[in-house]
Amino acid sequence: MIERYALEPMKSLWGLKAQYERWLKVELAVVKAYEELGRIPKGIHKRLAENARIDVDRILEIEKEVDHDVIAFIKAVTEKMGDEARYFHYGLTSSDVVDTALSLALVEACDILIDDLEKLLLVLMNLAEEHRYTPIIGRTHGVHAEPTTFGLKVLSWYAEMGRNLERLKAVREEIAVGKISGAVGNYANVDPEVEELALSYLGLKPTPVSTQVVNRDAHAYFVGVLALVAAGIERMAQEIRHLQRTEVLEVEEPFRKGQRGSSAMPHKKNPILCERLTGMSRIMRAHVIPAIENISLWHERDISHSSVERFMFPDVTGVLHYMLVKGKYLVENLKVNSERMRENIYLTRGLVFSQRVMLKLVEKGMSREEAYKLVQKHALECWESGRDFKESLLTDEKVREKLKSELDEVFNLSQYFRHVDTIFARFQGGCEDGR
Amino acid sequence: MIERYALEPMKSLWGLKAQYERWLKVELAVVKAYEELGRIPKGIHKRLAENARIDVDRILEIEKEVDHDVIAFIKAVTEKMGDEARYFHYGLTSSDVVDTALSLALVEACDILIDDLEKLLLVLMNLAEEHRYTPIIGRTHGVHAEPTTFGLKVLSWYAEMGRNLERLKAVREEIAVGKISGAVGNYANVDPEVEELALSYLGLKPTPVSTQVVNRDAHAYFVGVLALVAAGIERMAQEIRHLQRTEVLEVEEPFRKGQRGSSAMPHKKNPILCERLTGMSRIMRAHVIPAIENISLWHERDISHSSVERFMFPDVTGVLHYMLVKGKYLVENLKVNSERMRENIYLTRGLVFSQRVMLKLVEKGMSREEAYKLVQKHALECWESGRDFKESLLTDEKVREKLKSELDEVFNLSQYFRHVDTIFARFQGGCEDGR
Amino acid sequence: MIERYALEPMKSLWGLKAQYERWLKVELAVVKAYEELGRIPKGIHKRLAENARIDVDRILEIEKEVDHDVIAFIKAVTEKMGDEARYFHYGLTSSDVVDTALSLALVEACDILIDDLEKLLLVLMNLAEEHRYTPIIGRTHGVHAEPTTFGLKVLSWYAEMGRNLERLKAVREEIAVGKISGAVGNYANVDPEVEELALSYLGLKPTPVSTQVVNRDAHAYFVGVLALVAAGIERMAQEIRHLQRTEVLEVEEPFRKGQRGSSAMPHKKNPILCERLTGMSRIMRAHVIPAIENISLWHERDISHSSVERFMFPDVTGVLHYMLVKGKYLVENLKVNSERMRENIYLTRGLVFSQRVMLKLVEKGMSREEAYKLVQKHALECWESGRDFKESLLTDEKVREKLKSELDEVFNLSQYFRHVDTIFARFQGGCEDGR
Amino acid sequence: MIERYALEPMKSLWGLKAQYERWLKVELAVVKAYEELGRIPKGIHKRLAENARIDVDRILEIEKEVDHDVIAFIKAVTEKMGDEARYFHYGLTSSDVVDTALSLALVEACDILIDDLEKLLLVLMNLAEEHRYTPIIGRTHGVHAEPTTFGLKVLSWYAEMGRNLERLKAVREEIAVGKISGAVGNYANVDPEVEELALSYLGLKPTPVSTQVVNRDAHAYFVGVLALVAAGIERMAQEIRHLQRTEVLEVEEPFRKGQRGSSAMPHKKNPILCERLTGMSRIMRAHVIPAIENISLWHERDISHSSVERFMFPDVTGVLHYMLVKGKYLVENLKVNSERMRENIYLTRGLVFSQRVMLKLVEKGMSREEAYKLVQKHALECWESGRDFKESLLTDEKVREKLKSELDEVFNLSQYFRHVDTIFARFQGGCEDGR
Repeated sequence: MIERYALEPMKSLWGLKAQYERWLKVELAVVKAYEELGRIPKGIHKRLAENARIDVDRILEIEKEVDHDVIAFIKAVTEKMGDEARYFHYGLTSSDVVDTALSLALVEACDILIDDLEKLLLVLMNLAEEHRYTPIIGRTHGVHAEPTTFGLKVLSWYAEMGRNLERLKAVREEIAVGKISGAVGNYANVDPEVEELALSYLGLKPTPVSTQVVNRDAHAYFVGVLALVAAGIERMAQEIRHLQRTEVLEVEEPFRKGQRGSSAMPHKKNPILCERLTGMSRIMRAHVIPAIENISLWHERDISHSSVERFMFPDVTGVLHYMLVKGKYLVENLKVNSERMRENIYLTRGLVFSQRVMLKLVEKGMSREEAYKLVQKHALECWESGRDFKESLLTDEKVREKLKSELDEVFNLSQYFRHVDTIFARFQGGCEDGR
Repeated sequence: MIERYALEPMKSLWGLKAQYERWLKVELAVVKAYEELGRIPKGIHKRLAENARIDVDRILEIEKEVDHDVIAFIKAVTEKMGDEARYFHYGLTSSDVVDTALSLALVEACDILIDDLEKLLLVLMNLAEEHRYTPIIGRTHGVHAEPTTFGLKVLSWYAEMGRNLERLKAVREEIAVGKISGAVGNYANVDPEVEELALSYLGLKPTPVSTQVVNRDAHAYFVGVLALVAAGIERMAQEIRHLQRTEVLEVEEPFRKGQRGSSAMPHKKNPILCERLTGMSRIMRAHVIPAIENISLWHERDISHSSVERFMFPDVTGVLHYMLVKGKYLVENLKVNSERMRENIYLTRGLVFSQRVMLKLVEKGMSREEAYKLVQKHALECWESGRDFKESLLTDEKVREKLKSELDEVFNLSQYFRHVDTIFARFQGGCEDGR
Repeated sequence: MIERYALEPMKSLWGLKAQYERWLKVELAVVKAYEELGRIPKGIHKRLAENARIDVDRILEIEKEVDHDVIAFIKAVTEKMGDEARYFHYGLTSSDVVDTALSLALVEACDILIDDLEKLLLVLMNLAEEHRYTPIIGRTHGVHAEPTTFGLKVLSWYAEMGRNLERLKAVREEIAVGKISGAVGNYANVDPEVEELALSYLGLKPTPVSTQVVNRDAHAYFVGVLALVAAGIERMAQEIRHLQRTEVLEVEEPFRKGQRGSSAMPHKKNPILCERLTGMSRIMRAHVIPAIENISLWHERDISHSSVERFMFPDVTGVLHYMLVKGKYLVENLKVNSERMRENIYLTRGLVFSQRVMLKLVEKGMSREEAYKLVQKHALECWESGRDFKESLLTDEKVREKLKSELDEVFNLSQYFRHVDTIFARFQGGCEDGR
Repeated sequence: MIERYALEPMKSLWGLKAQYERWLKVELAVVKAYEELGRIPKGIHKRLAENARIDVDRILEIEKEVDHDVIAFIKAVTEKMGDEARYFHYGLTSSDVVDTALSLALVEACDILIDDLEKLLLVLMNLAEEHRYTPIIGRTHGVHAEPTTFGLKVLSWYAEMGRNLERLKAVREEIAVGKISGAVGNYANVDPEVEELALSYLGLKPTPVSTQVVNRDAHAYFVGVLALVAAGIERMAQEIRHLQRTEVLEVEEPFRKGQRGSSAMPHKKNPILCERLTGMSRIMRAHVIPAIENISLWHERDISHSSVERFMFPDVTGVLHYMLVKGKYLVENLKVNSERMRENIYLTRGLVFSQRVMLKLVEKGMSREEAYKLVQKHALECWESGRDFKESLLTDEKVREKLKSELDEVFNLSQYFRHVDTIFARFQGGCEDGR
């Protein structure tokens, strides 16, 4: 994670100090379990907990010598201890500590993200409700299609982010597993009872079969889901960028007082936050591939995943945290130009009502094929000439004959909003109802 | 999907004929719903169902003219119909048909994959059970670590594939949604009741907010999960490749009578199936990125996802189907050399028992640090000299003093298998219990 | 490659028949080299060339038995031969044939692509020249920045595609290597002289050190360059999609007579070709990862790259061929609305001239900071109010004082085109000059 | 880039201070060019160069207010200047500075990498030469194929890295371009002469057509080439991991005195550096996708590439620098067990000579098909029984009849090394000769 985008509390979570504290937490949980099960003398856990000291610099110093971070950690933590040190890391392999502690970090990170996402969902629903009936042209292929409402557009973001919340919650459960099962996962020097009890202190469950580590399929799944959440933010950000282009200008991302858009062009107000979020989503999804590559470790484990994860986990959780926090700010402070939305609907002088005309003609007995051709002919001519579509249609005898009196009704916006309430009603109780 | 790896029934599922049949199924379901709800005359559905004809060549011919596949389909299907044709595709937009039909295809494909995976799980459990107590050296970093059993190794595959089965089932539910909501998803020309009823005929649910299409987050999630399943197969395949290398030779993939391994070297038996599966997993995960890129369609939809999906869906489902079918064959017919597994454990003349020696010394009162150093000294000397580890230890006065009489026990394999049953017991009721 | 997008001649190049023909070509080149060097009797090459028969079905039939495609090929090709068969594939390993033949295919594919790209460059230069002075608003962040010309925009595509042409030519040289060096690349049973001569018949050079195969770094580089070319097409396609959105409408991709844009909305003309090309670029770049993964084959080679390449090479060359051919059609037939381009420049009523105003103020002695603030104040007010920018400035005493008489000059388009000719002149002799 | 793997000088290159210094360098180069061309008064450049002060904290403070890093930089640098400040950034847009400065950084980074790579090539050639004739078994599919030499294996790495050096040099030229062409690249407020002169001071060339920025195709190409270099290191690292597995043990990566391989198992010496390098290559190639996605910026530029690049450029150059430096250490200090290599050749008791036997039989008049079957039969029996291959062959009447007296020659290692010198000779003058 780079400094520029690092936000608390995610930033500290991935610091060295926090990491060593998690390692210690795991070591002590195991000692406590041993003690609880009567395998070691009473009082050891208390003594170890009191005497354990984390000195980051000292650990790094020892690591230079032994070239192994866990061994350095153990030596540093225990070097001023008395005889109780013999019970520290007893029967464990490094990965028991590191991998279980990694799960603690991922669960903690996931909880932050879930909280971020829930906050984003709230402001999304507010925005959707506020613009439930704000007309806007629906666009497909970037070309005007038919009218809809801005609220529905936002509700579509809400629905996607709601699905992402469910996915995030599901993957949190998958990742909340640890392993205290020794060098090759068969509990040769530590008992399953110790594992179960120790992990329960940490809020984790044992993974049913470990190798030296927890299998990387859960981690890859985790990264994949985070990339989906990011892609949801990207979809919003991209939409805002589109709607803010000068010719459209239906929304604008917040532009603070004192802010400057360009060093050269004083008139500029650019959707830079949305662009930044767009780029970030590229970073997020790129991580999915190495995350999956990490699954096929050799035999009971190789350590090729480690360098990948040192980059990946702080980056994917840190970037997504940033995206969610800023995404919420964006949605909360979005400037919506309803007037412009309404104007834009009529930019094509009525062409966007072409389907209604065609269906009405079919309803009145014309064949679909004939109706399509007739309407397309008028529509394409209007594209060229800029002529008003209704006027053009009224020059056509067949049209006049079949639906003259009903043309006004056909060119009415309200028909497009008949079912807006039905759609919103699907989310009455929050996003879960909408699934 | 390429011919070489295309297996039925997945192959036909993605043929043009099957696609048009799904489109027709969707169109007819909508007509039936209209009729059921009394919006169109009784009997229309029956007439349409009877008169609709799918002629692939004719559709392609028309498409050349109109440059739009759905319009070509409609024209071809209805061109010999009577007046009932006016009710065909009424109020729909192409994507109502195409996207809903795509969900049908994905659900069908997913069901095939779930079935494949369940079959694979069965043979995996059989193999795991058969070798529950077959000793094998556990390897970390490719280097001998400590003994374990081959059954546990296979059980680890089983556990991972079990998690993948759950993910596949979850994503099947996510993908089992359709949309009959018109050009921009607001039901301007079709009612939500029609959608709900029509989709129920098809075994699908309405997506709560559609744009012109079903949002692509579910599809990306689908592809992501398939890539995870593939990575699980890859992990198995890679392990077998490692175990089949000439120096290890603990397992061999099936080599059929008459098969030849090399055009130049008659002695060769190569794990070509496992290698093929490994490569296929690369293909699978590569698709995850474009799948996620497809999420951010412009506004109410652009069609940039379409060309991607024409490659992606047949490829990811077809390749994974192949991988699962062949993976099952592989597991079922794996040649396991238990004798060689046992021999390999002793390749290092006892070094793999080093942790036990160290822990025993600690148990007997030596400090962890001192014990580690003492054992490491003997171990590294034995690496160099090839000397027997126990013999070397016995030359050491401190060792003799502390644990002479117990050394034999320390060098005993059985202690590594104490908890094998406990681990297997976690899967008593199938893989779900093991989660 | 899927049928829908398969265009000749690339389509046939990847057919089974063409593949076996390339294999035969390699086998015969080796025999010819042997003969030329006097290692085998005169006349053998002629007899083999005459008697070799490629029967695709027969090869596939034998492959079912031996599970090895090259062995099947050899058996089928030689089964009706006389004694000369003993010189067929003599001293070779399968990969000598397959990998050298693959290079032949890639070179051939590359030549097609180079030809496609050169044709595209021609139509790009024509379009650029035609619109050398057609004014259009330059946009950054999707927001109006300053005027430029449409010709320069197209020239920027030309320049990028020119660089891509150079890259394509460079990678063609890298890929034009073969290997006839035996099972592990050390010429144990075939001489380097034979390799060199045989490859020279095929237009290839020996790779300096082979394993069993040509190293995959060149292949990965090849795929990477193809993805860059595709991304260049995507940039054009995306720009056209942006310029075709209803509010902008400065260009339109060709819309054929008889074409239909939507099954529901007769008025639609959508940039579907550009969208398709955009999606295809996603497919192209996705292949880069597995191509790089293929580099790290085990030892002297494993065959995990093979399944990847069976998908990858036909797909990347086939898709890019399609993209280049269609890209040329697109550029040649692009509908350019120069009038609309000019109108759009003035959409913001002069705001796009803000930098010129600021610089003029600085020139007249105002500090940059003061000038920026003054101009930004007026500009942001005009954004809100829709007021004409020049009018607004003229209400400002400081502006009137400093540059009243020069304001008209500042708001003049021509100043933005002063250096257009200089830029075009860089490409006088084709794109290479412009590098 | 993360602290753990950050090595100088690459680390400082990407610090904020170095970045601002590059920006200043670009600004001053432009001023100098203006002055040289007589556009501004003499002496300005000197005054600006003397008075410009980079105060990182002050810049960041101002950025908080204006939300634009370049504007903050300009304000901070000029805030204590006199009237000469008006000539600072005159006629420029932010991207003129930022993008040109980015090229400076990339060129500098590339030069470091080229230097690293040249050093690695030297030690590779030394190792290759040292083991030019050290016999080792060649392996395909992980299975013993035929003997070769360890020197050839290393030479194959050398050849690949040599190709990578050429690619790196080529991409350095591509990236050594800047742009001083204003907001939309048409030199509206700055002359091409100024650009050319200013860039020449910086060792860069003008990109022939810029938008607001230098097109991202060169940057993507740059990242792609770096990923190829990384993949070359990965191939070496993976090979060493394979050769270090306990059963093979032909090489070992350096294990320092005092180092510890496992917290649990004192006997462990693991190839952790090679594993780390393997993982790093996954990170490297993952960046290629977002790098290519960055190419399709909207219109004359959007800023979505910026957040991507803030992560990507420090990561790809920093990680590759680390890989090359450590890769050199690895190669220089590799422990090679030649004795074990020789022993392993005979692990299969002669099976690896099977092709020689077959070819000899063909030479003696047997048909290829018959010879293959005969040899395969004996070979597969020996696989099963562990019997000596030559002995087995000698029981066969046909073999005895045809080549009894020549069998010893067939089972001779030296024949595999006949052309080793020829291959090495291709690199007489360094890796370029070998292309």
